[in-house]
Amino acid sequence: MIRNVIFLLSILVFCACQQSGENTTNEIEAKPEPKRVEYALAIHGGAGTIKKENMTAEKEAVIREVLNEALTVGETVLKNGGSSLDAIEATIMAMENSPYFNAGKGAVFTNEGKNELDASIMDGRNKNAGAVGGVTIVKNPILAARAVMEKSKHVLLTGEGANQFSKEQGLEIVDPEYFFTQNRWESLQRAKANDLGFNEYAKSIHDSKFGTVGAAALDKNGNLAAGTSTGGMTNKKYNRIGDSPIIGAGTYADNNTCAISSTGHGEYFIRYAVAHDISAMMEYKKIDFQTAADKVINGKLKSAGGDGGVIGVDKYGNVAMPFNTPGMYRGFVKPDERSVLIYKND
Amino acid sequence: MIRNVIFLLSILVFCACQQSGENTTNEIEAKPEPKRVEYALAIHGGAGTIKKENMTAEKEAVIREVLNEALTVGETVLKNGGSSLDAIEATIMAMENSPYFNAGKGAVFTNEGKNELDASIMDGRNKNAGAVGGVTIVKNPILAARAVMEKSKHVLLTGEGANQFSKEQGLEIVDPEYFFTQNRWESLQRAKANDLGFNEYAKSIHDSKFGTVGAAALDKNGNLAAGTSTGGMTNKKYNRIGDSPIIGAGTYADNNTCAISSTGHGEYFIRYAVAHDISAMMEYKKIDFQTAADKVINGKLKSAGGDGGVIGVDKYGNVAMPFNTPGMYRGFVKPDERSVLIYKND
Repeated sequence: MIRNVIFLLSILVFCACQQSGENTTNEIEAKPEPKRVEYALAIHGGAGTIKKENMTAEKEAVIREVLNEALTVGETVLKNGGSSLDAIEATIMAMENSPYFNAGKGAVFTNEGKNELDASIMDGRNKNAGAVGGVTIVKNPILAARAVMEKSKHVLLTGEGANQFSKEQGLEIVDPEYFFTQNRWESLQRAKANDLGFNEYAKSIHDSKFGTVGAAALDKNGNLAAGTSTGGMTNKKYNRIGDSPIIGAGTYADNNTCAISSTGHGEYFIRYAVAHDISAMMEYKKIDFQTAADKVINGKLKSAGGDGGVIGVDKYGNVAMPFNTPGMYRGFVKPDERSVLIYKND
Repeated sequence: MIRNVIFLLSILVFCACQQSGENTTNEIEAKPEPKRVEYALAIHGGAGTIKKENMTAEKEAVIREVLNEALTVGETVLKNGGSSLDAIEATIMAMENSPYFNAGKGAVFTNEGKNELDASIMDGRNKNAGAVGGVTIVKNPILAARAVMEKSKHVLLTGEGANQFSKEQGLEIVDPEYFFTQNRWESLQRAKANDLGFNEYAKSIHDSKFGTVGAAALDKNGNLAAGTSTGGMTNKKYNRIGDSPIIGAGTYADNNTCAISSTGHGEYFIRYAVAHDISAMMEYKKIDFQTAADKVINGKLKSAGGDGGVIGVDKYGNVAMPFNTPGMYRGFVKPDERSVLIYKND
């Protein structure tokens, strides 16, 4: 009897432990592959101290309208089977052409009273990328970034060289006057009057109501792409370049993980390689997009004092839009879903 | 009796499974922390088709001497308790001041016959970083990068703005003629005569004998730092900026992982965020520095066709110097070890 019981006991201990081992394995490896949505597009128009009490109903309505229009432009491309690259290009152009965002037409002024524009684009299929820093005469910097990616052997062109390249590529060239907007000019005058130093700058971006624009998309073929465009920082000096044209910081796209565009205090986004870090966390820790994006934006970046957020789409079409500021102009569209949001608790 | 046996059985099953769980945990977490060496410094002077059969004994001796001198300069700082930042700055300056490397004095020429220099630096303690792109009158671009990190609110300054900032910071300014070297000038003429396109460029860097310089160090306080300096690509156009001034691509340093400087076909290093990717792989996959650096340089980057290598030091003072080209000028020094290497099988 006792011998039988001991035998039974051994078998049971063995089986129980095997079972326990199998469960662990199942949890890690055997998750069913999530279903991919047909297409998805996410956009942002900048993050900052965007609070309802500082906003008029009229202004809010206009911004929501522009964001909705940008989503529609990009969704039309995706619905018709167009590429994620074409979709984000069209979406970003729509926002560049609006005076309401700090990109293209609405770009902020440098300390010298100029407009220096940065943009980047990345193709998740092959990790090709293109970017321009400090262009001054290109109507749509996102087109210049795409031309660098597709028509040059380089990734990043800057200043006069980037202007020259854009001209040779036949892109639409404008007089620098095109980028003049009265409210941006007044922002520069206020910034100069206050002679903002480093710490003051941090506060000033809390008060910035409009920012960088960006888009990320998944197309019907399962390809991801992302892009970002900006006028940079009001009162910037010394041909400063922020994170927007930096692949890995402002923009990243990899068909194996996600496509991301960043907005915020660019220097922090460069130092923390924010867009690449989210992608790397997904790749190496095998965690989902929302969790990875939250860990970087509301964990690492927030602890370091870096204000801002990202929008993005993963390879299944999941959208994440975390930010650590009071608001971020943002939105997304999928076949049966559309959303345009501004405040934290929208 | 039976009731007692069943009770005993339940306890045993429970204990066995607990035990099994504990073992797993121990295997993952309880590795003994490796011992940290007192200090370590690694350097590179570029990667490419560097083969013994193409090298004269005299040339090889000179290059080994310059690399050894650079190591000595940096080691002296570290031995005396100086910071890793000061050590890599001194080391990189020594290489910038030599005509044998494509950085500082020995910088290559642009398509327009100019010298446009890029550099970056990063502090592993706090991930502070600074970089310049396309400076033309700064004798030691690594000093400009450090000034951007320590004296500005920005990370990346470019072109005329970066020149102006360097002047205001009292850095040594030189006439652009300072960067003239006969052999670099002849390289430009050869490149122009061949009118190298994208694919030809890839071949041309195989033939480049000298390259970008960089250094990474661990100091006695356990702090990591890395820096990189370059003249970029012979015959470059349009104010092209490569990976050297891009934090995350050409340079990265994080006290929790490692400090890295890259050299090679810069566009690939940007697209693959090479320096940050190695650090992220260590952080998220919990693998060692050598393994992570190999996976990126001889795995991901090589598969994509990106030529080059990295040198670096991890938080314990382990040195890794992987490259996927026939050779890389490289070396490292620790309290009881010193090595200067050129070829694959050195």
